[in-house]
Amino acid sequence: MARVLTGIQSSGRPHLGNILGAIVPAIELINQNKEEAFIFIADFHSLTSSKDGNLRKQNTMAVAAAWLAFGLDIEKTTFYRQSHIPEVTELTWYLNCFAPYPMLANAHSFKDKASRLADVNAGLFTYPVLMAADILLYSANLVPVGKDQLQHLEMTRDIATTFNRIMEEEILVIPEARISEEVMIIPGTDGQKMSKSYNNYIDIFLTEKELKKNVNSIVTDSTPLEEPKDSDTCNVFRLYSLLADKGQTEQMRANYLGGNYGYGHAKKEFMELILSKYTKERETFNFFMNNPAEIEKRLSAGEEKAKTVAFELLNRVREKLGFR
Amino acid sequence: MARVLTGIQSSGRPHLGNILGAIVPAIELINQNKEEAFIFIADFHSLTSSKDGNLRKQNTMAVAAAWLAFGLDIEKTTFYRQSHIPEVTELTWYLNCFAPYPMLANAHSFKDKASRLADVNAGLFTYPVLMAADILLYSANLVPVGKDQLQHLEMTRDIATTFNRIMEEEILVIPEARISEEVMIIPGTDGQKMSKSYNNYIDIFLTEKELKKNVNSIVTDSTPLEEPKDSDTCNVFRLYSLLADKGQTEQMRANYLGGNYGYGHAKKEFMELILSKYTKERETFNFFMNNPAEIEKRLSAGEEKAKTVAFELLNRVREKLGFR
Repeated sequence: MARVLTGIQSSGRPHLGNILGAIVPAIELINQNKEEAFIFIADFHSLTSSKDGNLRKQNTMAVAAAWLAFGLDIEKTTFYRQSHIPEVTELTWYLNCFAPYPMLANAHSFKDKASRLADVNAGLFTYPVLMAADILLYSANLVPVGKDQLQHLEMTRDIATTFNRIMEEEILVIPEARISEEVMIIPGTDGQKMSKSYNNYIDIFLTEKELKKNVNSIVTDSTPLEEPKDSDTCNVFRLYSLLADKGQTEQMRANYLGGNYGYGHAKKEFMELILSKYTKERETFNFFMNNPAEIEKRLSAGEEKAKTVAFELLNRVREKLGFR
Repeated sequence: MARVLTGIQSSGRPHLGNILGAIVPAIELINQNKEEAFIFIADFHSLTSSKDGNLRKQNTMAVAAAWLAFGLDIEKTTFYRQSHIPEVTELTWYLNCFAPYPMLANAHSFKDKASRLADVNAGLFTYPVLMAADILLYSANLVPVGKDQLQHLEMTRDIATTFNRIMEEEILVIPEARISEEVMIIPGTDGQKMSKSYNNYIDIFLTEKELKKNVNSIVTDSTPLEEPKDSDTCNVFRLYSLLADKGQTEQMRANYLGGNYGYGHAKKEFMELILSKYTKERETFNFFMNNPAEIEKRLSAGEEKAKTVAFELLNRVREKLGFR
């Protein structure tokens, strides 16, 4: 059975775009039992950009709570925090010594970030090697990547191939990329792609009062209440239709066309749909956020499983390199 | 009491230059009990240049055996292998995220190595950050460095200062450099500085037969046996006088001046001096090399001590960065 490994950013509470675009599809795949899934929260990576420890801890818990709220089966998955198997940094050191400096210096994402960011640190530079270690430590066969991460996966393959060649033994498993076709672009409140950095996201885990404000912030045009409206260009309708079933969607489209149906009505319906569709997930999320020990318990179980796999590989590498 | 930390290369069996220039003076200092000494074999660093695991293991054992043979008191010292407290790589990742990329890219030693070496890997590039972690993990106050390492120590201080400033707490101890004045240049068999890379070294741990060959390789001029000789320009005499007491040195100088005393005689005396002066050290070295478990036992004891210190600091850093 192929082992699929996915790292998730710990940059904050997952928004609707993360949920529909990543969490729900991943959990569906896992429940099909066709693959062995490793899912980790990439909190080490977050240090390249944020130095705020309290925020990181909070974000990590929120990410875990969201995945658990959406029904991630921790029996079927190895679910863990990257930082709780810190041995990945040891493998990173070894791999650093097999990673050509020019390969990293010429990486697209580094060049791009180096030209945009104020804090260009060595973590940012060696990030692809940590990513390689994340994958290779668990002998993953398949790694779902977006197009922007494809070069990093190529580097992982290069480093692993070089390592195996010099060691004259197939110690590291060469992973394959599973290129995620961008099937689902989730629009944000302003019609652009929903993203934390554009601050245009819907956060379904807000309290009702806050959620109302969040939904009301969706940008609409100024067509008067009485007039018919174009559902296809409306941000409210596009978001609504992502959650609604066919019947609901067609009903709202008819309302738009019929006139005397304002964006306020649509927003109210969208808000109600979120609350009814995600009642259980919202409750579970809040339960976990109020009971961090329950999150901790589940992550610790995953970390035990991850450690067993990690140490088996790491000990082989240590032996081979003459460190044991 | 100040804590002094010294890393020793694991690039092979220490030669006479290493012994007289580094091992003996360090052990003398330790025996004065004025400072708390941490001495580690930097085997992680050696991976930047050598990928041969068997050789690395062998070299690490030979380095340990030589220090033990010269009387390193493991009660007074924390003596350990860098690779056996692999948590140093975790701290390296954290520090990488506080180390400006341009600072590393502009480092003298990296630019120099990048222009000379074929294998310019990311380990070579981030080596100063691993060195910083080596020092900061043990809250060392003093680090003896040669002039070539001074820039790396400055980087350590910079990284630690930045870290403390951003964390708003004095977590990392800012180390001071103790610049080792190059008091003792040990000449090699060809008169240049004795060095592994020039292949001009005297290896006092060789068997008698091999040592004879080694000593005979000392380069001399072609002054005939009968003629008086200039002791000051003679490589044999210079090496001999490093080991001999005053009386012995003056006697040999007189022999040189008197004539009828050949370089062969001088070499024989030098060889005999090595054997008599280092009888115990040679025996002890061989004992350890034949009983690796005895080395292991002593290193393990040091590693237990080192771990306690390392984990105390590491846990504070983890907490502060939001990883625990």
